[in-house]
Amino acid sequence: MAFSERVSRLKSSLIREILAAAQRPEVMSFAGGLPAEAMLPKVQWAEMPLSLGQYGMSEGETALREALAAEARALGLNCEASQVLVVSGSQQTLDLAAKLYIDKGTEILLEAPTYLAALQIFQLFGADCLTVPQEADGPNLAQLRSRLEQHHPAFIYLIPTFQNPSAVRYSEAKRAAVAALLDEFGVTLIEDEPYRELTFDGGSAKPIAARLKKTSWIYTGTVSKTLLPGLRVGYLIASADLFAHLLKLKQSADLHTNRIGQWQTLQWIGTEQYQQHLGQLRDFYRQRRDAFQSALERHFADLADWNMPQGGLFFWLTLKQPLDTRTLLNEALANDVAFMPGEPFFPEPDNHHGHLRLNFSHIDPVRLDEGLKRLAAVVRQANLENVA
Amino acid sequence: MAFSERVSRLKSSLIREILAAAQRPEVMSFAGGLPAEAMLPKVQWAEMPLSLGQYGMSEGETALREALAAEARALGLNCEASQVLVVSGSQQTLDLAAKLYIDKGTEILLEAPTYLAALQIFQLFGADCLTVPQEADGPNLAQLRSRLEQHHPAFIYLIPTFQNPSAVRYSEAKRAAVAALLDEFGVTLIEDEPYRELTFDGGSAKPIAARLKKTSWIYTGTVSKTLLPGLRVGYLIASADLFAHLLKLKQSADLHTNRIGQWQTLQWIGTEQYQQHLGQLRDFYRQRRDAFQSALERHFADLADWNMPQGGLFFWLTLKQPLDTRTLLNEALANDVAFMPGEPFFPEPDNHHGHLRLNFSHIDPVRLDEGLKRLAAVVRQANLENVA
Repeated sequence: MAFSERVSRLKSSLIREILAAAQRPEVMSFAGGLPAEAMLPKVQWAEMPLSLGQYGMSEGETALREALAAEARALGLNCEASQVLVVSGSQQTLDLAAKLYIDKGTEILLEAPTYLAALQIFQLFGADCLTVPQEADGPNLAQLRSRLEQHHPAFIYLIPTFQNPSAVRYSEAKRAAVAALLDEFGVTLIEDEPYRELTFDGGSAKPIAARLKKTSWIYTGTVSKTLLPGLRVGYLIASADLFAHLLKLKQSADLHTNRIGQWQTLQWIGTEQYQQHLGQLRDFYRQRRDAFQSALERHFADLADWNMPQGGLFFWLTLKQPLDTRTLLNEALANDVAFMPGEPFFPEPDNHHGHLRLNFSHIDPVRLDEGLKRLAAVVRQANLENVA
Repeated sequence: MAFSERVSRLKSSLIREILAAAQRPEVMSFAGGLPAEAMLPKVQWAEMPLSLGQYGMSEGETALREALAAEARALGLNCEASQVLVVSGSQQTLDLAAKLYIDKGTEILLEAPTYLAALQIFQLFGADCLTVPQEADGPNLAQLRSRLEQHHPAFIYLIPTFQNPSAVRYSEAKRAAVAALLDEFGVTLIEDEPYRELTFDGGSAKPIAARLKKTSWIYTGTVSKTLLPGLRVGYLIASADLFAHLLKLKQSADLHTNRIGQWQTLQWIGTEQYQQHLGQLRDFYRQRRDAFQSALERHFADLADWNMPQGGLFFWLTLKQPLDTRTLLNEALANDVAFMPGEPFFPEPDNHHGHLRLNFSHIDPVRLDEGLKRLAAVVRQANLENVA
């Protein structure tokens, strides 16, 4: 059996395995990143034109591209509809970017930690992953400069707003500083923004791509966290020099994004109805975040440190007594609790023990306290065993 | 700007450019492969559960996988639902297969001519494309054996039923012989079957994958030609040794296929309603095929040879006086006629002048005669100029 060389880097997905294990209804899962089912909006299909059943354009539906460009301009991004490419979720943007930039051994620059599925696709294509440590307000700037002075990464991949997994939102100062550094060194930015709208304090966060003056950029978003993930509709907006390449790569990947989902998305983007829905979503998730914070304080105060997330879907815990959290999984699942170990969010997992990513949006509130109590007991037991 | 090495092989898509030019309403287009709008079935959405808005499984919806496996077993394919992966159209199967098999310089084996968009994605990944000449009843078997004796291709890619572009349907004898050769040499088969259901004479055609005894295989189909292409729902069925890899590659490409389109597809697959729709579709396209054949005889009898297609969407013309048909495009478009030159369907276009692919399913019947008349005039004029 002669597979490609890249298949040797095709890892078994820990997320897939954990989510599969968490399918059992008795499992209390903090593992996934699923929106709460109660907050999926009731969508209508009756008005959809039959003609949308025909093949569509690889770029996406014209009206949707215009609506997305208008939203992006409101965020400060200097762009036209012609720079918008509708994709099948942000994950596809990462696949297209990997194809555009990564040969075996190509250096790229990432936050540490970073989004696990981004790491997987970049590594599949053979990237050599350099990292910058994430701090509470964004990347360590001295180390970012140092990496840029010593390397020429093909791009830097950043999730500046409520990062998955760390929940970090870059400060205004760091956004400006990162943009200036990327312009100075001419490094392309890939900015991934799935969680922008899930803000609990209303704080603004102008995209880094909107602050660039010279270098190339890809900005990517999705409706998966705010509307319906099952539609598989996301988008990228790219600087004009990159767009034609990304369009051809999209066409060769799957011709075009499903038009049914694009039509439904267009019914929402830019409407008052969508703003109302987003308001309800933020209230709902803020309450879940607050309840989670209280439960964490009850059960994890002596075990871990964390910052309270101001948006997004996750708490990121740092254990006071570091251990390889992957070793906790079996015992947790045996107690009907699922969580995401922190190690796979780093290119070098074995150098980054002791973090847990906990999703707060999807757990049934009546099971929250029991779930965290059991998870804390698993950690506590492991601490004892490690000491012994 | 440092792109990946593969981007140097990212060709401008002739199809995209021709289809864009053919957007003008006055253009009579034989270029695309679009289903006739009149035959898009009226689909209902009212019963779709809201829960389908949530994230789904990378494998696809369980009920749909079971229905697709049952259909495939009825064709003779020995498979279970666990071997079915729902994808965003057949094009995505080709992307996943390219990732699974192709490094720069990997030898693969194709029919000549073959599907242009397959050629593009395989070449993008750096494949070294070997070919076997297509004959009226399938590939030349002596040359197929010779290629397999002299090379070890990672896979062979075949479209045995109403091939795009040649419209060839392999004979039973050639299907059996090809399967035996692939088993003998242990070469993986990728069998692409978008046109299987569009048969005009009801002739059967057991898949080659169903005849294999030993070697690995991927069988891929779609509802784009028979239901609604805008749904972006296709599927692959793979031998068990390949499935886990393809599933991980699907997950890293776009997490999963849109569930809205999967649900709609499930309302049709295996139903009496679908059989009725397919019957109407075959009748409709058969009539268009017949009208096209008559018009071709009027205008192209002295200019080209062709076989009447027994299914699919295309006529494949071989000019009696060979010339590079790409050079006809500007003049044709100036006369408001669009067609697909044959050269891009070969890995070495410059060695294969003199073919035209003409789509018969989409042209308005009242414009058919005028369209072919104008196209014939363009060919005739070029012949005169070449002689002069």
